[in-house]
Amino acid sequence: MADRIFRVNMGDLSVKIEDVPEAWQGLGGRALTSAIVAAEVKPTCHPLGKYNKLVFAPGLLSGTRAANSGRLSAGAKSPLTGTIKECNAGGTAAQLFARMGIKALILEGMPAGDGFYALKVTTDGVEIKPETELVGAGNFAVIEALEKSGGKDCGLLTIGQAGERRQLAANISVKDPDGKLRSLGRGGLGAVMGAKKVKYIVIDAAGAPKTVPLVDEEKFKAAAKTFARALLDHPVCGSALGEYGTDVLINIVNEVGALPTRNFRSGQFDQHEMISGEKMAAMIKERGGKTKHGCHAGCVMQCSQVFVDRDGNYVTSGFEYETIWAMGAHCCIDDLDLLAQADSIMDDIGVDSIEMSVTIGVAMEAGIIEFGDGPGLLRLLNEVKEGTPLGRILGSGAAVTGKVYGLTRVPVVKNQAIPAYDPRSVKGIGITYCTTTMGADHTAGYTIATNILKCGGFVDPLSKEGQVELSRNLQIATAAVDSTGLCIFVAFAVLDNEAALPAVVDMLNARFGTSLTVDDVTALGTQVLKTEHAFNQAAGFTNAHDRLPEFFEEPVPPHNAVWDFSDEEIDAFWNF
Amino acid sequence: MADRIFRVNMGDLSVKIEDVPEAWQGLGGRALTSAIVAAEVKPTCHPLGKYNKLVFAPGLLSGTRAANSGRLSAGAKSPLTGTIKECNAGGTAAQLFARMGIKALILEGMPAGDGFYALKVTTDGVEIKPETELVGAGNFAVIEALEKSGGKDCGLLTIGQAGERRQLAANISVKDPDGKLRSLGRGGLGAVMGAKKVKYIVIDAAGAPKTVPLVDEEKFKAAAKTFARALLDHPVCGSALGEYGTDVLINIVNEVGALPTRNFRSGQFDQHEMISGEKMAAMIKERGGKTKHGCHAGCVMQCSQVFVDRDGNYVTSGFEYETIWAMGAHCCIDDLDLLAQADSIMDDIGVDSIEMSVTIGVAMEAGIIEFGDGPGLLRLLNEVKEGTPLGRILGSGAAVTGKVYGLTRVPVVKNQAIPAYDPRSVKGIGITYCTTTMGADHTAGYTIATNILKCGGFVDPLSKEGQVELSRNLQIATAAVDSTGLCIFVAFAVLDNEAALPAVVDMLNARFGTSLTVDDVTALGTQVLKTEHAFNQAAGFTNAHDRLPEFFEEPVPPHNAVWDFSDEEIDAFWNF
Repeated sequence: MADRIFRVNMGDLSVKIEDVPEAWQGLGGRALTSAIVAAEVKPTCHPLGKYNKLVFAPGLLSGTRAANSGRLSAGAKSPLTGTIKECNAGGTAAQLFARMGIKALILEGMPAGDGFYALKVTTDGVEIKPETELVGAGNFAVIEALEKSGGKDCGLLTIGQAGERRQLAANISVKDPDGKLRSLGRGGLGAVMGAKKVKYIVIDAAGAPKTVPLVDEEKFKAAAKTFARALLDHPVCGSALGEYGTDVLINIVNEVGALPTRNFRSGQFDQHEMISGEKMAAMIKERGGKTKHGCHAGCVMQCSQVFVDRDGNYVTSGFEYETIWAMGAHCCIDDLDLLAQADSIMDDIGVDSIEMSVTIGVAMEAGIIEFGDGPGLLRLLNEVKEGTPLGRILGSGAAVTGKVYGLTRVPVVKNQAIPAYDPRSVKGIGITYCTTTMGADHTAGYTIATNILKCGGFVDPLSKEGQVELSRNLQIATAAVDSTGLCIFVAFAVLDNEAALPAVVDMLNARFGTSLTVDDVTALGTQVLKTEHAFNQAAGFTNAHDRLPEFFEEPVPPHNAVWDFSDEEIDAFWNF
Repeated sequence: MADRIFRVNMGDLSVKIEDVPEAWQGLGGRALTSAIVAAEVKPTCHPLGKYNKLVFAPGLLSGTRAANSGRLSAGAKSPLTGTIKECNAGGTAAQLFARMGIKALILEGMPAGDGFYALKVTTDGVEIKPETELVGAGNFAVIEALEKSGGKDCGLLTIGQAGERRQLAANISVKDPDGKLRSLGRGGLGAVMGAKKVKYIVIDAAGAPKTVPLVDEEKFKAAAKTFARALLDHPVCGSALGEYGTDVLINIVNEVGALPTRNFRSGQFDQHEMISGEKMAAMIKERGGKTKHGCHAGCVMQCSQVFVDRDGNYVTSGFEYETIWAMGAHCCIDDLDLLAQADSIMDDIGVDSIEMSVTIGVAMEAGIIEFGDGPGLLRLLNEVKEGTPLGRILGSGAAVTGKVYGLTRVPVVKNQAIPAYDPRSVKGIGITYCTTTMGADHTAGYTIATNILKCGGFVDPLSKEGQVELSRNLQIATAAVDSTGLCIFVAFAVLDNEAALPAVVDMLNARFGTSLTVDDVTALGTQVLKTEHAFNQAAGFTNAHDRLPEFFEEPVPPHNAVWDFSDEEIDAFWNF
């Protein structure tokens, strides 16, 4: 049976199952969520109002046996940035949707009252039931309730207290294969789900086939093998990420002087070793946790982990470089055990750990607590959980917190927190922060790969030369990768191994019976960016928003680098 | 001696006295503040950073004996709206500056440390001294300290606790002839002064002439007489405003069904009579206060008052319709004594009473207190005064409060609170809210004059017909009036009395020896708007920002009117 779109109207609690329009049949993941949002959402609408839509879509390769193909995209107009938004995450949902032939799940409208609802998606449609018991509960309680009620094999999308309160830092959590969480993190999409009054969505694939149909099974198998080999052979994908997690970057980025420290006052953190991937791996091994863990079935990189406390009890997983940087170097806290505890709290409340942790640093800038105050950080997270006035401020993200406290040193672009690489010392990523359609987002065009990790060549991070082109090429490629359901980390292998990208194209053709070329995939990426950019322009964004905050004109040690791109140089990004 | 510009650099605490460039010699008030901001402030700069400038300028006729010519303009990039901003207010400062030959006072840069400063402006220059004693004090304490130290005749510009904290609702207060306050209210300019670390500015005119020089004294005298006569003869300017204050509008606007009630859910407030101008005048008379009071010397309208409590003690003055509406109908509080007390608190803290009171209504929408809870309103204002987390939220204005609480029913345009006329039921003012360069602002193009008060003809408030033209004509005229130092209420007479505008032109020509025509004055207004609009566009504003919030699509009783302008119809405003 052909794939279908499931459309849930939360205004009248009705469900429609629709054929996929021809124009969308070749799309998946980000390409599809952005196409649907661009086609159906008025760019100037209120992101928390009834005219916004929240779209979930598995990638084009999700549900196949392709390595690392289980990413789920979520799209909407972002309440944090006001732009179009796509996030993607692992977990089990993408593969379940794909197996169930659900090309996209669209939530639209909003109910009149204050009550919340739970959705259950099956191959037959969507049940909508009022939910009361779990309202006010954290994400872990929702998972526990699902597993107790016999839904262990079901997928789950859920929001915590932050999403219920429509907080701008709220994310959407996706259950992973071990009953833990992955996050559709950025842009406040949890607030959109909260505005639609959906507490959680259970995905029950009973009756669905075990894998998606393939037009050419043999061809697929061969290409998938080549692709998996390319990942396993690459030093980053096949070794470093599995060994140390993404936190392997702490020492590397500190070494090159680009680890933003004390709210972007330095590029080096004296205590970097205390929060490094090496340190984390040693702690985990000593305590009997797991250094390797996959966020979805079929992941060969295993960059997640099972972080345990001194007594060997589970604390958190998916404990990422970005989160550790933000609470660590940015907030100057060097206690990895405390950061792991904080990570778990953020997962439970349902807030983006980048936005939330950068915001804590902004709260330190405001003098609410001191830089380095770990227990203070836990207290502030508890305020977010409780929804106190201070917690409400912080749960609104860095830009709002900066406004409430009258600050200028607020690291955001388009109101979204700048992640873990100082744009003065790694200029390519600065171009990505400025120009991506998503607000500051490293994943949108991860120039760190080439600026620091020397994948796909090398572009000197401290020179302006070549950065715009680098960011543009990576943003186009990323938009394509985000549409396949593949994890963005496959890009390292794609950049360095000539066999990798043709293998992806071969898998797509074998899956759908198409005859795409590598150029078609690039064209898809270009089309996605242009669709998103047009949405943002219609929403009122101009080149004037493609700018870093003013304080980046200050030199940052150790290189005393400054942000020195002219407006014209930045704006040249869109010349394609 | 020719007029000069006083320029204070708060970065290095230096002062320059400059000649007025030729291009600015014919400008005053808003025309001058907007020209300086447009020429010297980078549109994308952070409003609270060192690149913003705060400009004060008396109007072209300030310091003369022209009736109602004592308005002071303040301009900057607004931290509330992100647009260019001009506010004007009475008080004594404009006339003092004009007599001292100070065409404009520009504050630029910002000091490195946390300490505050006090400025003293004399004809010789500006003294800059560290200020510690009055830091943390309210505006009334600053005035009291000035008067105690023998500065009773000096002018004063001051910020309260809100401005010190760089809160987005912070205003700048101007001492009036009776040692009370008038407000440079909107757009958060108090936060800009706070960011520049200036607590207050004393204006000492010792040695300055008593009036400004006039090129043709006789001609001026004749024109001034004609002008004053036109004001006194007009039923609004010469009678209603003096009798009942601006609060005379409560019953009138309620009657036409355009008094926004319970956060814009109705156009009529059942208890409107309890907060009406008629009620206020009766209370004042009974208690021995004053129903008439001028905000500056030479005002013939006397729309201010001295509002006293049951025991005859002074409570507040400048107790305006907008403030009373916002706390009254919008928040559903019908106790005028309580509102007067709240007005005084807001003056002391230094917050825009429109922004602050509309924000209280948004807090009611969020459920922080109930609609109608007067004591709750006083408690919330006290939180703003104390700078608690909740107070910080509210002091950030309606848009931020709406974001922090995840609301969609937030009456703002360009983040500034919508004032006291429902745009669905008075469509002309809706066009002004959308299109003015200032964020929602009734004074920018007060179509109420023609839509309701039938000055200058009548345009049916419920029909779309003619509203864009009406708003455009009034916005152009207002930009010109705001440049003269004349109170905007002179517009009523100008609209109805053919002699009034030529008299204004005659006064300008007699003052400066020019030969301007009425068309030149209109051209000045057009030029001001275009300068401001260009600044906003360079700051990143587009037509997409010229929109009312989505909830205005809901019908509002009693007319069940909706906001039904298309985007194209609104955007036609700028076709001139």
